[in-house]
Amino acid sequence: MKHKILFEPFNIEVEVPVGSNLLRSAIEQGIHINASCGGEGVCGKCRVIIENGRVEGGLSSLLSDEDVEKGYRLACLSEVTEDITVRIPTESSLDAKSLNKVTKRFTAKIREFDLNELKDHGLFIPPIEKKYLELPEPSITDNLSDVSRLVSYLKLTHGEDKIQLSYPVIQKIPDVIREDNFKITATMERPLNENNKSRIVNIEPGDTTDKNYALAIDVGTTTVYGQLVDLTTGNIVAEKGDFNSQISYGEDVINRIVFAEKGDGLEVLQKAIVKTLNGILKYIIKKGKVEADWISTITIAGNTTMTQLLMKINPRFIRRSPYVPAATIYPPLRAMDIGFELPEHVTALLYPQISSYVGGDIVAGVMGSGMYRTDEVTLFLDIGTNAEIVIGNKDWMACAACSAGPAFEGGGVKMGMRATEGAIEDFSIDPITFEPMNITVGNIRPKGICGSGLITIVAKMFENGVIDSAGKFKQEVQTNRIRIDSDNICEYVIAWEKDSSIDRDIVINEIDIENLIRAKGAVYSGCVTLIEEVGLTIENIERVILAGGFGSYIDLEKAMTIGLIPETDPEKVTFIGNGSLMGAKMSSLTNRIRKDVANVTKMMTSFELSETPSYMDHYMASLFLPHTDIEKFPKLKERLEL
Amino acid sequence: MKHKILFEPFNIEVEVPVGSNLLRSAIEQGIHINASCGGEGVCGKCRVIIENGRVEGGLSSLLSDEDVEKGYRLACLSEVTEDITVRIPTESSLDAKSLNKVTKRFTAKIREFDLNELKDHGLFIPPIEKKYLELPEPSITDNLSDVSRLVSYLKLTHGEDKIQLSYPVIQKIPDVIREDNFKITATMERPLNENNKSRIVNIEPGDTTDKNYALAIDVGTTTVYGQLVDLTTGNIVAEKGDFNSQISYGEDVINRIVFAEKGDGLEVLQKAIVKTLNGILKYIIKKGKVEADWISTITIAGNTTMTQLLMKINPRFIRRSPYVPAATIYPPLRAMDIGFELPEHVTALLYPQISSYVGGDIVAGVMGSGMYRTDEVTLFLDIGTNAEIVIGNKDWMACAACSAGPAFEGGGVKMGMRATEGAIEDFSIDPITFEPMNITVGNIRPKGICGSGLITIVAKMFENGVIDSAGKFKQEVQTNRIRIDSDNICEYVIAWEKDSSIDRDIVINEIDIENLIRAKGAVYSGCVTLIEEVGLTIENIERVILAGGFGSYIDLEKAMTIGLIPETDPEKVTFIGNGSLMGAKMSSLTNRIRKDVANVTKMMTSFELSETPSYMDHYMASLFLPHTDIEKFPKLKERLEL
Repeated sequence: MKHKILFEPFNIEVEVPVGSNLLRSAIEQGIHINASCGGEGVCGKCRVIIENGRVEGGLSSLLSDEDVEKGYRLACLSEVTEDITVRIPTESSLDAKSLNKVTKRFTAKIREFDLNELKDHGLFIPPIEKKYLELPEPSITDNLSDVSRLVSYLKLTHGEDKIQLSYPVIQKIPDVIREDNFKITATMERPLNENNKSRIVNIEPGDTTDKNYALAIDVGTTTVYGQLVDLTTGNIVAEKGDFNSQISYGEDVINRIVFAEKGDGLEVLQKAIVKTLNGILKYIIKKGKVEADWISTITIAGNTTMTQLLMKINPRFIRRSPYVPAATIYPPLRAMDIGFELPEHVTALLYPQISSYVGGDIVAGVMGSGMYRTDEVTLFLDIGTNAEIVIGNKDWMACAACSAGPAFEGGGVKMGMRATEGAIEDFSIDPITFEPMNITVGNIRPKGICGSGLITIVAKMFENGVIDSAGKFKQEVQTNRIRIDSDNICEYVIAWEKDSSIDRDIVINEIDIENLIRAKGAVYSGCVTLIEEVGLTIENIERVILAGGFGSYIDLEKAMTIGLIPETDPEKVTFIGNGSLMGAKMSSLTNRIRKDVANVTKMMTSFELSETPSYMDHYMASLFLPHTDIEKFPKLKERLEL
Repeated sequence: MKHKILFEPFNIEVEVPVGSNLLRSAIEQGIHINASCGGEGVCGKCRVIIENGRVEGGLSSLLSDEDVEKGYRLACLSEVTEDITVRIPTESSLDAKSLNKVTKRFTAKIREFDLNELKDHGLFIPPIEKKYLELPEPSITDNLSDVSRLVSYLKLTHGEDKIQLSYPVIQKIPDVIREDNFKITATMERPLNENNKSRIVNIEPGDTTDKNYALAIDVGTTTVYGQLVDLTTGNIVAEKGDFNSQISYGEDVINRIVFAEKGDGLEVLQKAIVKTLNGILKYIIKKGKVEADWISTITIAGNTTMTQLLMKINPRFIRRSPYVPAATIYPPLRAMDIGFELPEHVTALLYPQISSYVGGDIVAGVMGSGMYRTDEVTLFLDIGTNAEIVIGNKDWMACAACSAGPAFEGGGVKMGMRATEGAIEDFSIDPITFEPMNITVGNIRPKGICGSGLITIVAKMFENGVIDSAGKFKQEVQTNRIRIDSDNICEYVIAWEKDSSIDRDIVINEIDIENLIRAKGAVYSGCVTLIEEVGLTIENIERVILAGGFGSYIDLEKAMTIGLIPETDPEKVTFIGNGSLMGAKMSSLTNRIRKDVANVTKMMTSFELSETPSYMDHYMASLFLPHTDIEKFPKLKERLEL
């Protein structure tokens, strides 16, 4: 159910879901309301007048009885429950003439995994299928071996004519086949290549065809996710995320590799990730109300370092020039051989790697996003400490990786933090008073700034002339919020200590901005270099896919404003979230994809940006907001000129 | 070097190798010389006169100086070292007129494994090959993954274009590939089907191509043999036999199955055979001066029960109607998963089974003997407690098994024993005096009678009219050696206590003969039934192959005389000894055979004799010497009529 809000004096009308927060509804329309405390109702700045209709809440001791009588409410505490007209008083708002510059918040469309599409394309063929058989009992005139009986009737009744068996199945067949009087369910593992044999990896007495589950696992450097997929329906029946226990041995892949190189470090790290994985496994098995025996397969996607650590393969050469990974493609193997607390019959499939810095998580994202099946020239971006870039379509693909540094994850930023509770994730600034409007995760008083918040802050400051294209505060801007700190660095106070939930002012300084510019410059120049190397230009990009946690709440217009991503129609951009997990899940649901994965891995050309001469030129040119050459951002240029 | 012996008064001349024993040389020509003590020189019966030339030894205190002066010697103590003429005095010999009945001892030609034949046929392609590569070092413009580097240069320099890798190889590749500066040897496991991929199962730094070995193993119910094969030369570098430690849990397969069905019996038996195998392994690895790491593959052949016990598969249903084995074909698996103390990379290949009672040992024999490649209609016989019969050629095959009972292995016979030292293995009887001529294993005083001895004893007694065709002693035969024992059973004393090495007379009685007749009847009727079932007659058999320890010293004419095997030209018969081991070795040397093994297994039709109505008729008709219908043994009939 939706309600209308009419924002005055701007005459902007918007429909929002019932229960929407009024302050967030405003910022999403690009409407500035001074608000320092992140939405906790502490600073009392976000006063608005409800002219028609009523809101739920919005009252505060910071409002006098007289104000309340006049219709004043605090926007951050108001919930929209009916159609309303809201007036932003001059004190809280930007000058109406600035409105031309207003850009609505635009987050990318979220593309979810579409099971029905898979079904429609006839691709819902899990890599593991169960077949139920009622075998004739042996007699003296029909005393085939138990295995031959199973194999010949699979052919006769299910048309399965290419079959081999695993050793454990042969070991238990005499007893299992007789347990329910020659009624038996065979678990068939499909081959990569249809001409090869299916392998019977498990047999159970009776009909257990409805008990067939798969696990999809994303092994991230920081977090690990698992999903339990019902292979009969295609639905997720349980899921769970957790921190990678390896974190205590190093924050990023380089520190993990350094640790792995010492003594029994590799073994310690392998055990740590296996511990995390088994914890997730235990949880989702319980939560999904399944038995471990019903699980048939596990698909794992992770970056190259995570994959080698999980497989207990020395990662030493990943971080040393010429950056050689051990392998790109891994054979299927027994999950228990990796250390999973799963039955012997469970096969583990690993997503292949492209290079030392474009790993299985990216290949999985390419698969999960459907990029590998489209004609459209697509730019796939996974932005984090490292940014991986893929460009191409179903016929060709190229990829590269670059180091963006930790700025996007809140690192190397004075008040940076991850996008957890209290992180400023959205921001606006009054172009006259330069007062801020802060929105935090969880609507509590701010603790710091997360990656998407940082981008928005820098974009808004740039758009509103607070900083110049070099990221320096403009001298003409008059506000007590801009000051020089004890280290002689210029900074802007986003939230005074009293409005924050920490013991000091929350600021952003020129070094923070410089770090962000370097980070965005690395990503942008990576994209541009790769696009150039494949002989295209930005205009040729028909689709952009953002993967990874970072992209979820990012304001696309702002990302383009700072020059993080090439300027393009925001409608072309989709966000897929955890592409790695999405790809792993897709592999659980369709065996066809395995061949496609192999093809994608083969056809993907990997570029070493450090070996591409134009990369450094592009990078240097990117160290401005949005870029040395504003012509590359025509829409922004137009907006700024207004 | 050979010498001539002229036996008088029979005017029989023979060439024998230098150092031949004179007594054995005589019996091999069918010449009877009384000899009770097995060749130990104790009874002093085997007096002969050396008329021309000299023998080495032959002297004894049992000969008077006068005798020695006249040229008398004891045949059993005489060694032939030059051309001689030997006269058998009347006292020691059979009547000259009986000579027409004489048949020379005829043991089957021994067919040994012929490596050169394999090479000539271009079949010397071991299932495991090693390839040496000098890889280019990676650089920033060539930073393929280690695996991709190996795979692409295997293709480039060795034309290997279908390759996959095992997980352990991927695990160690980063370190191994750099240990000798990108010089590396890859161990390639060839696929069953040439269209499939070869698998790299091991990698080693440097050039180790000359260190490539295989193990061939025969797992028998009683004995286990292992051979270490150098895959570079094809030669055996060490071998070893040992008793199967399972013996302490039951003598034969049925008793083993009974034991396996109780409690942890299966585990106990599995551990027992693995212990035996690891003992053999340790010995031949040391003896062959190789390292366990150089071993690439192990091929195992055993009967169905031995195979299931080794693979820890419940054998319960093997011994229960309708006699269903767990599997016929086994997938390749890791030797260490079975329990072998061998490195992770060693693959174990198991010979497939045909049915519960025609197992991998027989399939291996069929392969090792070359029967599967010939046009000739071949009868393959492996005679022991159970007899397995295969008939066919390269285009078709049929098989059956029957229980012969333990008579051929010395069981169920009053004085029966295995063919170890002191066992009477050859025998002759004087048709006038009915005095015996005993030849024992090791030429010592007799301890008992082994299987081949029993056959010869019964055949000679039958030929010389001591027993009738029902196996009963003829009343008209007058000798103190025939008597009635305390249980009222008629027996013949082969060696008096004083000439034996035990504390009583060595005898053969009518029950022993009856047991032998039942055993030979089972085998003969099995052969005849199977031959009939495939629409042939005995005359169609172009070749007979005897496998197993039993056939090694068997006198073919005697075996036909008692009706154990169909009467056929002895020249058509070959003996292959341990066919199971021979087949296992062959599989180590040529990968081509794996496909042939699969084909043979598929095309072999198994007959259940108990379900073939004619079998019982044939069996009943076989319970005579040689058979109810003497016309089936025309050559014997002719000899008897003389």
